[in-house]
Amino acid sequence: MNDPSVTGGASPGQDDAVSDRARRLASIPSFQRIDAFLNESDYARRHLMPGACDFTLGNPHQMPAERYVRTLRDALTPQHDQWFAYQTNGKASREAAAESLHRLLAVPFRSEDIYLTTGGFAAIALALKTVADPGDEVIYSLPPWFLYEPLVLEAGLVPVKVKIDTMTFDLDLGAIEAAITERTRVVIVNSPNNPTGRIYPPELLRRLADLLEAASARIGRRIYLVSDEPYNRIVFDGLRFHSPAEFYPHTLLAYSYGKTHLSPGERVGYLALPPTIPHRDEMSHAITALQVAMGWVYPNGLLQHALPELEEFSIDVSQLQRRRDRLADALGSMGYRVRLPEGTFYLYIPTPIPDDEAFTASLARRDVFVLPASCSKPRASSGCPSLRTRT
Amino acid sequence: MNDPSVTGGASPGQDDAVSDRARRLASIPSFQRIDAFLNESDYARRHLMPGACDFTLGNPHQMPAERYVRTLRDALTPQHDQWFAYQTNGKASREAAAESLHRLLAVPFRSEDIYLTTGGFAAIALALKTVADPGDEVIYSLPPWFLYEPLVLEAGLVPVKVKIDTMTFDLDLGAIEAAITERTRVVIVNSPNNPTGRIYPPELLRRLADLLEAASARIGRRIYLVSDEPYNRIVFDGLRFHSPAEFYPHTLLAYSYGKTHLSPGERVGYLALPPTIPHRDEMSHAITALQVAMGWVYPNGLLQHALPELEEFSIDVSQLQRRRDRLADALGSMGYRVRLPEGTFYLYIPTPIPDDEAFTASLARRDVFVLPASCSKPRASSGCPSLRTRT
Repeated sequence: MNDPSVTGGASPGQDDAVSDRARRLASIPSFQRIDAFLNESDYARRHLMPGACDFTLGNPHQMPAERYVRTLRDALTPQHDQWFAYQTNGKASREAAAESLHRLLAVPFRSEDIYLTTGGFAAIALALKTVADPGDEVIYSLPPWFLYEPLVLEAGLVPVKVKIDTMTFDLDLGAIEAAITERTRVVIVNSPNNPTGRIYPPELLRRLADLLEAASARIGRRIYLVSDEPYNRIVFDGLRFHSPAEFYPHTLLAYSYGKTHLSPGERVGYLALPPTIPHRDEMSHAITALQVAMGWVYPNGLLQHALPELEEFSIDVSQLQRRRDRLADALGSMGYRVRLPEGTFYLYIPTPIPDDEAFTASLARRDVFVLPASCSKPRASSGCPSLRTRT
Repeated sequence: MNDPSVTGGASPGQDDAVSDRARRLASIPSFQRIDAFLNESDYARRHLMPGACDFTLGNPHQMPAERYVRTLRDALTPQHDQWFAYQTNGKASREAAAESLHRLLAVPFRSEDIYLTTGGFAAIALALKTVADPGDEVIYSLPPWFLYEPLVLEAGLVPVKVKIDTMTFDLDLGAIEAAITERTRVVIVNSPNNPTGRIYPPELLRRLADLLEAASARIGRRIYLVSDEPYNRIVFDGLRFHSPAEFYPHTLLAYSYGKTHLSPGERVGYLALPPTIPHRDEMSHAITALQVAMGWVYPNGLLQHALPELEEFSIDVSQLQRRRDRLADALGSMGYRVRLPEGTFYLYIPTPIPDDEAFTASLARRDVFVLPASCSKPRASSGCPSLRTRT
């Protein structure tokens, strides 16, 4: 469609019906693969059928918790005439989120540094647009959450992908350092990690902070860290989660309640700034302008009314841990090389044959649905054929 | 902060803590004025106090309708384990929206051409990004809805503002034609209009369609029309609303349920393509990619479960019409020059003194809160000092 000689460029609309940016987004290979998988595959046709085993997305596997439904029902009863009026950064929601984050991370987050969003996607997009301009580079590690790329490209930014340490599933700090250029503005860190389940240890995060501090000085421009941590409460074996925000003050922390509540269709999350971040007033003006200009990305009133109560609610993490163990034991006994995840809902394991798409397709023919690793990285560089399965 | 000599540019983060784009958005004059009005004015301090008369935003003036609350409560009861799972363009919601739009406009909208969003802001932003690339120009008429400018700028586009006919409140087609350049990609039309309450007549829309068809041919590139019509069901005096989508096939129709339901805090709306639009497949791929990449702008599951039922619900428009009449009569008898709005919730009337901000501030000291027209246009060009009051 881009060659005017084919379509006759004289007639308006023939060769540019949509914007270049939309066309580019629609043609991201990993995005096309996940779209085909979700809409045109055996999965699309059969995952809701009786007997199908759906281990793909972070969706529920059982009925919603009674407490979750009851809390929303209570919050639905109007207490005044502005109950369903426009909502922005509601005070009670901000306070509940800040207190909870303070308890989790031992960092005294302030309620006015919590910016409420329609979930994690919007919090990440908000963070990127707050600090980065078109052409700036964003570093993240492979295998990534498969939707960083569309978010980064929609913001006009340049994705720079580095490998993780495939033995430990840790960040490869050498690879990150080597990828930094004068255009680097953001490094995205996702811990507990989707898909590996790895929680990055505090020593690693401290070394990353030192690295970013030195690199910022070297390039003469601040490199921000966006910490994407929707699984920071889905942690196993009594481990303690540490956020990059504890080590690097220039961290924007993106959180979604969709995992803790296992209700990703009810969109609520936030972007949080640590109290140590410099230039808080300028950041605040930037973020609040973007919350409106990006399309009013505030969570719905009902969820805000419920949030102080919902902050106390979580799915049963010990049950998730038992499911992880059961699945890992079974797969291990079949000969799969399983590295136990420390958090999240996922197992990330090498496939027994090199073509992970062919392998997951063969499972799909048996009504067992898992995601091939190629859904989250460029096909050509798929040096570590793997699959991701929801536990 | 932009002068490195002031802050010492050597230390990273001193002079570029936030992105240029965020800084530009935060400094839009009309945006700053509305922000100051909402957060730092007499309005901010007193609009919720007993006796205060709040005629500013499109927020409720009475308790939520029982039917609205009951419908949401019914939709909250889970019918299966995926009740709160990720939602995209839900089939039942699309069908209900398409049927309703078909009844309203006598255009046979197809359910697969309805793209569900978190309200009107997201629908407009989605429309702009689907067809326009950074640097493209977007024409809209003054006085505009005061948040077009942030949405247009966030999309990297260039706002081009033209005057309306201040006698009839109609679009000034000559002004629109004169504003078209080779970079023009979108004309936004808002009918029924916020703030004037004008419904553009079908003859005017047909002439606009002819104008845009001819201009597209002249510049060799399709000019799209974005029809922002959240008030298309808030219409008085038995008038019939006509959408630009009936006359110009290259129309993207943005709708929000926030006005019809008077619940702008529960975000749900859509972007609809008329069945006559060319290149539907390419548009569909572009829009669905953007719905994810813009930050998962789909409405929450609860609202989607409720939508087929909520499509049948509306606030009482005849009551709104009686309120319009009462307010217009009272203002007219005091000597205000009132032009009766044909739809929406607003009256847009000249202020008795030239400084509309000073005038609305004097009303605010008496606890009567209305918006000065300068909130929606650059101060310098405020040739028609007016105020907008919610009826």
